[in-house]
Amino acid sequence: MMGFLQQLQVKASKVEEALNSYLPPADTYPTVIHEALRYSITAGGKRLRPVLTLAAAETLGRDPGPVMPTACAIELIHTYSLVHDDLPAMDNDDYRRGKLTSHKIYGEAMAILVGDSLLTLAFELLTRTGTDEGISSDRVLKVISEVAHACGTGGLIGGQVADLVFENKVITPPDLDYIHSHKTGALYRVAVRSGAILSGASAKEIKELTEYADNLGLAFQIIDDILDVEGDAEKLGKPIGSDEKNMKATYPSLYGLAAAKEKARDIAMQAEMALEPFGTNARFMRELLHYILSRDS
Amino acid sequence: MMGFLQQLQVKASKVEEALNSYLPPADTYPTVIHEALRYSITAGGKRLRPVLTLAAAETLGRDPGPVMPTACAIELIHTYSLVHDDLPAMDNDDYRRGKLTSHKIYGEAMAILVGDSLLTLAFELLTRTGTDEGISSDRVLKVISEVAHACGTGGLIGGQVADLVFENKVITPPDLDYIHSHKTGALYRVAVRSGAILSGASAKEIKELTEYADNLGLAFQIIDDILDVEGDAEKLGKPIGSDEKNMKATYPSLYGLAAAKEKARDIAMQAEMALEPFGTNARFMRELLHYILSRDS
Repeated sequence: MMGFLQQLQVKASKVEEALNSYLPPADTYPTVIHEALRYSITAGGKRLRPVLTLAAAETLGRDPGPVMPTACAIELIHTYSLVHDDLPAMDNDDYRRGKLTSHKIYGEAMAILVGDSLLTLAFELLTRTGTDEGISSDRVLKVISEVAHACGTGGLIGGQVADLVFENKVITPPDLDYIHSHKTGALYRVAVRSGAILSGASAKEIKELTEYADNLGLAFQIIDDILDVEGDAEKLGKPIGSDEKNMKATYPSLYGLAAAKEKARDIAMQAEMALEPFGTNARFMRELLHYILSRDS
Repeated sequence: MMGFLQQLQVKASKVEEALNSYLPPADTYPTVIHEALRYSITAGGKRLRPVLTLAAAETLGRDPGPVMPTACAIELIHTYSLVHDDLPAMDNDDYRRGKLTSHKIYGEAMAILVGDSLLTLAFELLTRTGTDEGISSDRVLKVISEVAHACGTGGLIGGQVADLVFENKVITPPDLDYIHSHKTGALYRVAVRSGAILSGASAKEIKELTEYADNLGLAFQIIDDILDVEGDAEKLGKPIGSDEKNMKATYPSLYGLAAAKEKARDIAMQAEMALEPFGTNARFMRELLHYILSRDS
């Protein structure tokens, strides 16, 4: 039997392969945007969100194949949010994961359009989910609706806006929770829920998997904050200490490093408890929690 | 019986009312983005695209009510493309329709997020089409797929990219046609097709209405170019001569003013011929052609 890391890698590779097949070829007219799209997507990342969509299907004892277009759509949305977030008018980042950001290579105008294209392509891809595999149009529509909501001003964008509004300001714990649960959490949540809905999960199963996703997303974010304090810049592919430099409120800055670590562990345990009803089918999702808690990049 | 202009106004008002009901209230947290969304949407315009979606239903002898969410989604997409197009990194416009552009009021970062939100909200709205009016999920999914394609790199964004690529360069007539048919045409086409598909049009009817939409979109664009040469800045709400100043290729610059006007009339006549099978039901769509040909703003 494969170890967890190998399973994670196999799943991530399948996502990369699928992304590659869904993106228009780089020589499609107008070529510059299609090259730029591929640049932004192949810039890497752990593909955790689409892997979670596949894992939700598996945890329910289903074949993850039919949910692949949705899994990839969620990765496209994640990438669009990074491309726009890196823009000079937003976070003004020159590097991401050790590679030049889109606007540094293709210019600002093209980077705006790359983000717009990724978001648009995501919705086109969502409509292609499971049409040949007997997933009903009703379920696909429900997923599109949830994804759109999770990305809108009640989700991802709401989190970005709050993050901008609170820049260089004193922030309270509830405000920080709002930013994290929207800017990061909403996409983790919908990644898992989409996989569950498309796989025919019951309302109870969707609720349990949502509980898992929410806690996993929060744990991921706290670890992110901790790594920005005591991580290894080389492994992370970005300088550390940027949150402190930007006076950004984080879990370590609000609660201290030790309490932040304990909070991450507590939350991960809650996520694990939510998986109990799924028994051994939830093995991968369970190990993913431990992986996220102990990650160093 | 109401005259055409009154009918147009009634339809546009219904669209505005619906948009107002679909947008989150301005005091929704985080308020700044919801205020900014409403600012961008209420900045006016003739609402021609959503009106075309409603008109497609009527031309098929159907009630336009059920297609309203889709009509509004298309207006949100049109507005998103204007907000991003006006950004400093793109066309850098301070005014649109005589009002300050979004980034002049809310800043660049927020204007990027406003565009992103409008696009996302459009897809959320599309999923709400006709659920209570017996429109099948299959049809709604087909429309979402077509809208996403029309807005992507094979449509609207492809046209924007080509427009950027050809800036200050010699342009051939086929390149100009590509830009117009994608940057402007794709959204007119999908506005009409969406209304037709949701109203249960036959393949033949969809083909005829698409022919109408393509020619109407092209005629609209040619008149736009002509107005930039000989229009009235005050009525247009923007300075004229900007295409020449920006060395932008247009129909008048490529073919001369007289030939451009003749081309617009020819194309409008082709659009009118495509409406023949619909008889008197197509009256509004027919009058819209004459309105577009003779418009001065």
